[in-house]
Amino acid sequence: MKIYADNAATTKICKAALTAMNECMEHVWGNPSSLHTIGQEAAEALMRARISMARRLGCDPSEITFTSGGSEADNQALRSAAMIGKRKGKTHIISTAFEHHAVLHTLKRLEQEGFTVTLLDVGSTGTVSARQVADAITPETCLVTVMYANNEIGSILPIAEIGVICKEKGVIFHTDAVQAAGHLPINVREQNIAMLSLSAHKFHGPKGIGLLYAQKGIRLTSLIEGGAQERGKRAGTEDIPAIVGMATAFDEACGHMEQNAAKISAMRDRLIDGLSKIPHSILNGDPINRLPGNVNFCFEGIEGESLLLLLDEEGVCASSGSACTSGSLDPSHVLLAIGRPHEIAHGSLRLSLCAENTDEEIDHILRAVPKVVEYLRSISPVWRDLQTGKREYVIKEA
Amino acid sequence: MKIYADNAATTKICKAALTAMNECMEHVWGNPSSLHTIGQEAAEALMRARISMARRLGCDPSEITFTSGGSEADNQALRSAAMIGKRKGKTHIISTAFEHHAVLHTLKRLEQEGFTVTLLDVGSTGTVSARQVADAITPETCLVTVMYANNEIGSILPIAEIGVICKEKGVIFHTDAVQAAGHLPINVREQNIAMLSLSAHKFHGPKGIGLLYAQKGIRLTSLIEGGAQERGKRAGTEDIPAIVGMATAFDEACGHMEQNAAKISAMRDRLIDGLSKIPHSILNGDPINRLPGNVNFCFEGIEGESLLLLLDEEGVCASSGSACTSGSLDPSHVLLAIGRPHEIAHGSLRLSLCAENTDEEIDHILRAVPKVVEYLRSISPVWRDLQTGKREYVIKEA
Repeated sequence: MKIYADNAATTKICKAALTAMNECMEHVWGNPSSLHTIGQEAAEALMRARISMARRLGCDPSEITFTSGGSEADNQALRSAAMIGKRKGKTHIISTAFEHHAVLHTLKRLEQEGFTVTLLDVGSTGTVSARQVADAITPETCLVTVMYANNEIGSILPIAEIGVICKEKGVIFHTDAVQAAGHLPINVREQNIAMLSLSAHKFHGPKGIGLLYAQKGIRLTSLIEGGAQERGKRAGTEDIPAIVGMATAFDEACGHMEQNAAKISAMRDRLIDGLSKIPHSILNGDPINRLPGNVNFCFEGIEGESLLLLLDEEGVCASSGSACTSGSLDPSHVLLAIGRPHEIAHGSLRLSLCAENTDEEIDHILRAVPKVVEYLRSISPVWRDLQTGKREYVIKEA
Repeated sequence: MKIYADNAATTKICKAALTAMNECMEHVWGNPSSLHTIGQEAAEALMRARISMARRLGCDPSEITFTSGGSEADNQALRSAAMIGKRKGKTHIISTAFEHHAVLHTLKRLEQEGFTVTLLDVGSTGTVSARQVADAITPETCLVTVMYANNEIGSILPIAEIGVICKEKGVIFHTDAVQAAGHLPINVREQNIAMLSLSAHKFHGPKGIGLLYAQKGIRLTSLIEGGAQERGKRAGTEDIPAIVGMATAFDEACGHMEQNAAKISAMRDRLIDGLSKIPHSILNGDPINRLPGNVNFCFEGIEGESLLLLLDEEGVCASSGSACTSGSLDPSHVLLAIGRPHEIAHGSLRLSLCAENTDEEIDHILRAVPKVVEYLRSISPVWRDLQTGKREYVIKEA
């Protein structure tokens, strides 16, 4: 048995997207910049995919720029808003302490270039309020960038409320919707989102493709200069098969969002209930207001990496945090941001589900995790010290 | 009959690469940053593809950074070398007047940031000599970037000789090998290339993927910040199916390079011979030293765009220049760089072949082009003025 419970890291491409990609690679493989029939067929496919994505996001097709993924979209969004701000003498940016590294690292770079960044405290459940955002906005603020849902602990942030505040104050509002897209409703007009990033491989689309939505009037700064593709905002021959695959997958994901969410969150809740029974386990993230597929626990006294490797032997593919940082020995910045002590943050487990998971798989996980945790604790000196009171943590309960 | 003679714009993915991509999307779709089996299988596929590309390029796998394509690789190469130069107080860059826009536009941006750029004259055949490069190098020079082969007129530049000069002078040498890769021999050690860009979709690999080779010791500047992928030099989940597809296609292309070149250049030479017979036609680019598949002519008195559209009706998919600039009304910067007057540059035709083209297709093109040129001239006031001596061009013969 091999159970994939790491859908926040990446998903398997769905059949419809795979078929659409293959159809493209076989028959619509031209360069959309070419004037001849084969090129123009590709241009048409590109346009259809753009319209399809725009319709699902509630924006105009011209507001969409295809990128190589979520990281590129985040980088370009932040750089663009920063440049717009700079031209107006506004160099203050507001974000949260637990954004994806594509946002945090770009912010760090912008700080080196003279911007000031306020990272809002996300509290113990991992969220920020619209009030916090409003209070942080100054006349110098050029950008608020707050993720729609956290990639590690799954908490959902009040995007629409933040959107209203930003609109009122005339500040660009960007949201990294990489984890939310395809799983939570998005309508950029209704939610007052000015910029939004998403990545196809998080909703059963192909890898290597994403997009940046930017409201009309927001001038994008190119990260990649060269050809006139994407109205001069992103050079490089468009990856039509991937773009078409993304549009197909997004259509599928949005079309089945409610029924998938019901199925997935039922499995999630079974996992949360079951794993909560493990002694000294702590649920990370908001217990209610979280992504349908996200389960994240810390287990005191153990190392996340050992947990993952033993779970893998039990046929369970899981993560200790985001895949982008695994392999690193640093504890998750997300878990530190919600106040978990270093040692506890090290003992984290993220299970992220999709509609392909089954109840039998959940049963198996519910047997495997307690077994592995118990075994690891039996050989853990840290656990022994905790039991004998030699060591203590202070934990903020969610 | 539909003849695709625009392989310099993009190529159809080969069967082997398509099969490898599908195999990946079905079975090796994990995130290589994940510690579990499904992730590690993806990491292995990534490593195998990296080793395969490195072997074909004659470099170490650790010297390869996968990018979303040639444009990104060019941008990153130039920015990285520029930053290295800047730290040493060296801010002079040497290039040629007919590079791809991914290079030229990045150079323009670097000029705005304080760098000085020398664009070498490429003469009437479209090349530069190692002597020209040597003469242009100053103690302030941090980078020489010269393409391996030109994308529009197909001329091949003396990369290895330029490599020797740059090595002697201690200047980083980058080459945009997007048009050369898979068609001309590459060995970065033997050719003394310090940095090289390539793009998979130009050699029957997938779109949306390319790579930047950078010799050990050259510190790359990230264009996309975030995760630790590609040793921290290129954030974003790796597009394993595309990377594996690229490695497969490159293996195929390199494995059949000689036999393909023989077949393709024979077809090219038939086209050049045949189209040269059209009155007032001018071959662009070096007659001998050119890419196996490249044919590029100017036909006096006509508009390239009309030529393309009528050829398309005759079943011939061709280009007037690079696809990245088609749709634009500006004449090709490449043709201007080799001294073609504006009006002549407008009447250009690029036919670019691959091994899938056939002699029958060449016969058809040899019938179609003269017919269309004759028709367009019959309705062209410019042609009438040229015939009556009312209008004159000065043309440097190749």
